[in-house]
Parts: sequence; structure tokens; C-alpha cells
Amino acid sequence: MALFSIGVDLGGTNFRAAAIGQDGSLLDKISGSTNSAGGRDAIVDSIVNAVVTLRDRRTGDQLAGTGIAVPGFILIEEGLVLGSPNLPALDNFRARDAFEERLKATVILENDANAAALGEKWMGAGRDVNDLVLLTLGTGIGGGIISDGKVVHGYLGMAAELGHMTVDLNGNPCGCGNSGCLEKHASATAIATMARHLSLGDNLSSEDVYKLAMQGNAGAQRVFECMGQALGLGLATYIQVFNFPLYLLSGGPLAAWDLFAPAMFREIERRSFNYRACRNIKPTRIEKALLGGDAGLFGAAYLPFQAMGSGA
Amino acid sequence: MALFSIGVDLGGTNFRAAAIGQDGSLLDKISGSTNSAGGRDAIVDSIVNAVVTLRDRRTGDQLAGTGIAVPGFILIEEGLVLGSPNLPALDNFRARDAFEERLKATVILENDANAAALGEKWMGAGRDVNDLVLLTLGTGIGGGIISDGKVVHGYLGMAAELGHMTVDLNGNPCGCGNSGCLEKHASATAIATMARHLSLGDNLSSEDVYKLAMQGNAGAQRVFECMGQALGLGLATYIQVFNFPLYLLSGGPLAAWDLFAPAMFREIERRSFNYRACRNIKPTRIEKALLGGDAGLFGAAYLPFQAMGSGA
Repeated sequence: MALFSIGVDLGGTNFRAAAIGQDGSLLDKISGSTNSAGGRDAIVDSIVNAVVTLRDRRTGDQLAGTGIAVPGFILIEEGLVLGSPNLPALDNFRARDAFEERLKATVILENDANAAALGEKWMGAGRDVNDLVLLTLGTGIGGGIISDGKVVHGYLGMAAELGHMTVDLNGNPCGCGNSGCLEKHASATAIATMARHLSLGDNLSSEDVYKLAMQGNAGAQRVFECMGQALGLGLATYIQVFNFPLYLLSGGPLAAWDLFAPAMFREIERRSFNYRACRNIKPTRIEKALLGGDAGLFGAAYLPFQAMGSGA
Repeated sequence: MALFSIGVDLGGTNFRAAAIGQDGSLLDKISGSTNSAGGRDAIVDSIVNAVVTLRDRRTGDQLAGTGIAVPGFILIEEGLVLGSPNLPALDNFRARDAFEERLKATVILENDANAAALGEKWMGAGRDVNDLVLLTLGTGIGGGIISDGKVVHGYLGMAAELGHMTVDLNGNPCGCGNSGCLEKHASATAIATMARHLSLGDNLSSEDVYKLAMQGNAGAQRVFECMGQALGLGLATYIQVFNFPLYLLSGGPLAAWDLFAPAMFREIERRSFNYRACRNIKPTRIEKALLGGDAGLFGAAYLPFQAMGSGA
């Protein structure tokens, strides 16, 4: 009788769920619509049905529990979703209790970016370390911090809001009320917006800007240099603060690594003496994450194993 | 037979050592010259003599161990001082083994700012929390991070270099190679240097600037406003990163709290949505540290208790 766990990555539009073995092997996978238009009950129904389906397909095996990665702020101990900008139906919802009542089994919630960081630690680029920071570059910038193998939550579940740290005193205005947030200078959205500043074309996506840069467009290349510089300043701060051995980046803009990484590393070199001091002893690693869009799924599935103390 | 521990705070010029009980009571105290001019052996002699004196005065009681706070980078597990700008004689010195050989007893080393943060957690302003950040404002800015009751070291003992994070892209040049480091905008030295920028007087100390500001000097008041703003940006970043319940400040400039705190809080409000979001649930606290210059001594003394698992 093999032990397995179920991980769910709940997004604003779609969800994915997977049965994963204790060794990290992907046993089964389902995806579907979150049904967020139907409100709280419809969302819970979608997830519960998927979990039950995955569970029932594995009769004979033992379910360790279900981990659910949610895009929002979560009070972990209470299982309470404080707020979820992409799934407002879940605001102030005691989601863990609701899921557990329906499933009659252990459910653990986690913020989606934190789950992604945990997934990379368990089965991805961070397998060989206990401490890492993950930055996910997308519409915004999310983050997760793993310290001593565990997610750093903060006292109200709001730790690792890494996209909303100031990298430029008077930088671009941010919806959060600040100006100069990292995500306004280094996310996929920021790449597209900078291209608009340079009038490189209408409605360009960050991928379009990447293609332009690869075709030799100097403006598009400069966009990635600015993006790399902002990212480098942010990373330099984390390296000074944590002195962790590993910092991971994920998301669409990673395809443009060769375009932004030189500026990023120049900025880190200049702004972090920890980075320079460690180089001759054991270099600080800044690398691409490995699991892509599956990181949150693996992290969510790892949560029940970790809670049992049978994970690693 | 009471259990006690000995804490040592080793400075560039002087040291202090104390016998402290398991309940945090200060039992005995010695101070003296570090004898750094005499090199490594003279420094070790000074400390060993003080520890032996404190120990021998408590016959009948049981020594849990000795903790030594050292100003520098330390590989904790190896007990190796990698580098100490204020005590260069200790560079690349396996200090723990040297002390243990002389004392025939357990010795634990810790970075001085980390020890101060641990001291505040044990017996100071952080007694009621398990997670805090301490910033010590002096010639530079040092820092310590306590997570889950323990010092965050990083993989090479360089974590919490909080004074060397960028708060202004093109700010004041720093000896570390960066420009715009927090300590170049918010330390006691920075306060004095800003006063020089405004030609407020020759050879002013940060205390002189404070006195001028209290006498109504508008330039001196503006210095503290700039200092508070820089400090606020740094704290906003830590609050976004950690979401810890408590951030502590210590050092001489704390006397000027009323002059810099308004600008500091304005900046935190603006730049940290975590700070704003937590206010209605359980406010993030930013407060003065309580133990002053004794924080490192208490933190050092706590190390042996913590190692025994008999601390808190």
C-alpha cells in the first residue's frame, strides 16, 4: 500500500490537481475550470470533485492528505483565506474547514507562490538546499521564502511579498500605493510597458519584446537591460538580508535570461558585498527554477508529507 | 546548585563579560581592554581571564557554557571567524576551538549584531515574540534577524547585513562598493555627514545635530527627516519580506525618535501594503530596543542555554 498525496493549484480561472507519490513521482493529474463565477460553493465543488476523483482512482493506496495552493493571503494556522485578488469569492473564507468537512480528510492551505518555492525545494532546482528564495515573474512578481526547509509565513501570512519592495525611490507608480516596486520594473508586464515607453509597437507582450530583442532591436534589448538591473537590485538586497545559498527565478521572462542576466549580475556584484565575499568560499547561486508551472502543484502535494514529518 | 552562563561582548577596544542566570538575572559583570594591539593571543588571554574570573567566583553553581559575541563574519558550525574589520587579528581564526581548549568548556560564537537581536528576544523588547528584526544604528548599521526564536545565519554566516541594502539607486557612496546603502543615509555617521552637507557646523556628532534640532534649527530637523525616510524605506522592505510582528531599533540616534519617527512611519505607510493590511488585524510593531549596550551580552549568554534546549 503506497502513500500518496494530492496537490491542487487553484488559479483565478483554472485549477490543476495531481496525485503525487512520496518520492515526488507524478501519479495522476486532472485540470478544470475553477467556476469562480459560481461563487464560493462552486469553487469548493470543483476542487472537491477533482480530489475525490483522484483519490478514488487509487484504491488500495493511502492518502496522506491534500494540499491546496491558493492565490492570496492565508492565515495558515486558522486555514482562513484573508483575501484573494484573483478569487475574491474566497475573501475571509475559512476554506480549510470547508474542504475538510467535504473531504473528511486533512487539508492544508498555502499561498501559491510559497507553494511554488516549496515545490522547487522538494523536487526542483532547490533539492540540494534547505534555504532558498523564489521569485516568479509574471503579470506581477510573487515570491516565496524557504528557511530550514519550511515556508516563511510571517505572523499574518504575508511574508515574501517580494514584488512589492522598492527598487527605485521615485520609480513607476504601483497599484499597491507605492512607487518603484520591483514588479513595476521587472515583471512580464513591466517589460511590455517599458517597450510601450519606447514606442516599439502596439499591444506588445513581453514575448514580443523578447522576439524584437533577438532580432537585434536596440530598444527592446535596453528594456531587458533595465529589467535585469531592477531584478539585480532586488536580489542584491535579498542576498544581503538572507545570505541563502540559492535564489531562483521562474516565469515567462526567463526565456530572455541571456538578455537580462548580464545587467542583473552586474548590479548584484556592485550592490552586494555578501555576493562578492562568498564567491571565493562557496558562490551564491542565482538560477532558473526547474518545475515551471508545476512548482505550485508539487509544493501543495508536499505539504501533507511535510506535516507528517515523512517528507524529505 | 544554580545553572548560569557567561556572555562576552567583544569589541574592537574593550570587552564586557557577565555571568547570567537561566532566568536572565545579571549575576556578575567584568569589563576590560581587548588588548587587540597584542594580537590574537593577547585577545584570547583577555577573554579567557575574564571568563575564568567570573566562573571561579561562582563555585557551587554550574556553568552551562560561554557565549562570545564577535564583531565580524563567523562560520558558526566551524567556529571560524572569517573576517573582523574591527579586530583584524581574528581574521581566519578558529576562535571557538582556541577558547574551548583554554577553558576546557563549551564555547559558542555569534556575530555581535545577531547576539544583540537574540538578547532582545530573550530579555528585551522581543520577549513576547519568536520573530523579529533588529537594526543597530551607530557608526554603521548592523542587523540581526530572529526567526522561530533562532538567529538566521545564512549559509556562510553573512545574513542580516541590513545596513548594506540599497535604499537609493544613486545615493551616497559606501565603502562596501555600493551607493545608496541604508547605513550611508540613516546611521549616526550619516546624520553627522548630512549636517556637514548643510554646513551646520564643524565636526558635529549626531548628538550635536540632535541638540541643534531640539533648539529649533530647521536644517538639523531636516537631517532627521531624511534619516527617518531612509530608515522607513528599509523597514518597509523588511516588512514586505518577513511580515514579522516586531522590528526593533537601537543605538544613539534613538534619542531623536520624535524627530525621525514621523518621516519613518510615513514612508513605511506608503511603501508597505503589508503594514497597512496588518493594521486592522494585528498591527506590525516598530519599537525601540530595550537592552541598549547590554543586548549583545545577554544574547551571548543565552547561546549556551539555547544550545541545551533549556533557554526559554
